[in-house]
Amino acid sequence: MPRIDLDDIVQSNGTTYPADHAGPVQQRWVRRIAPAIGLADFGVSHVVLKPGAASSQRHWHEDEDEFVVMLAGQATLVEEGGRTVLHAGDCAAFPKGEPNGHHLVNESDADCAFMAFGRPPSGDCHYPDVDLLWSGGAFRHKDGRRY
Amino acid sequence: MPRIDLDDIVQSNGTTYPADHAGPVQQRWVRRIAPAIGLADFGVSHVVLKPGAASSQRHWHEDEDEFVVMLAGQATLVEEGGRTVLHAGDCAAFPKGEPNGHHLVNESDADCAFMAFGRPPSGDCHYPDVDLLWSGGAFRHKDGRRY
Repeated sequence: MPRIDLDDIVQSNGTTYPADHAGPVQQRWVRRIAPAIGLADFGVSHVVLKPGAASSQRHWHEDEDEFVVMLAGQATLVEEGGRTVLHAGDCAAFPKGEPNGHHLVNESDADCAFMAFGRPPSGDCHYPDVDLLWSGGAFRHKDGRRY
Repeated sequence: MPRIDLDDIVQSNGTTYPADHAGPVQQRWVRRIAPAIGLADFGVSHVVLKPGAASSQRHWHEDEDEFVVMLAGQATLVEEGGRTVLHAGDCAAFPKGEPNGHHLVNESDADCAFMAFGRPPSGDCHYPDVDLLWSGGAFRHKDGRRY
């Protein structure tokens, strides 16, 4: 049955961020749909942000396209020099290599939910707001030291 | 600005189906988002089905994962041995290689809209209900003759 019952898929608030930078995503609850249902060509995640939570640290990928579709509630898309409130049905795209650090933040007083699409990044990921860099398969300080 | 204004993207009801099989998709209106905004890792299409229209002939891909998220209205997912009505927020996945011919049909009296994700298929696509096969880069009759 191709229709997906989200309740069948484990929801986790885990993160691989170093502890110093994990606070904003502690109330980000993710269901990794693609591996759960046998998709391999791209990643699909269902994400709930509790009030105050962020989708990630603000970041941009050198080599991973990203796409989001809002499903419920509202989230603020924060990017270089701009803020845009997204509502159900809105979508946004982040082509790889564009140095426009972005994330979604739930600044409302209710949960919001969105679907995120991407592929596993093989190159660097940059975090303009914090002392963080993903490079060589590990999180590092901006000077290259590993966390 | 990563938020996408759908009105900026051309909407087309074109199809490459042979004329014999194009009827069901004549009122399928597609915006091909990925090329319009510079995504290359996967395809993203915004699709509106007018009442009576189908997303495609019922089909399955040997080598392309597909995923849909309903945005508005309702569509009937028709697959082997089953029918499921999808509403806004529902999603469905079609892993490559599973011989479960599927399509969405708008059996309601109002437009419906969904977002579809995939990658360009490089292998065969099978159509269980009609004399149609995609193979070797062309539409063919099931006996292999080209349209």
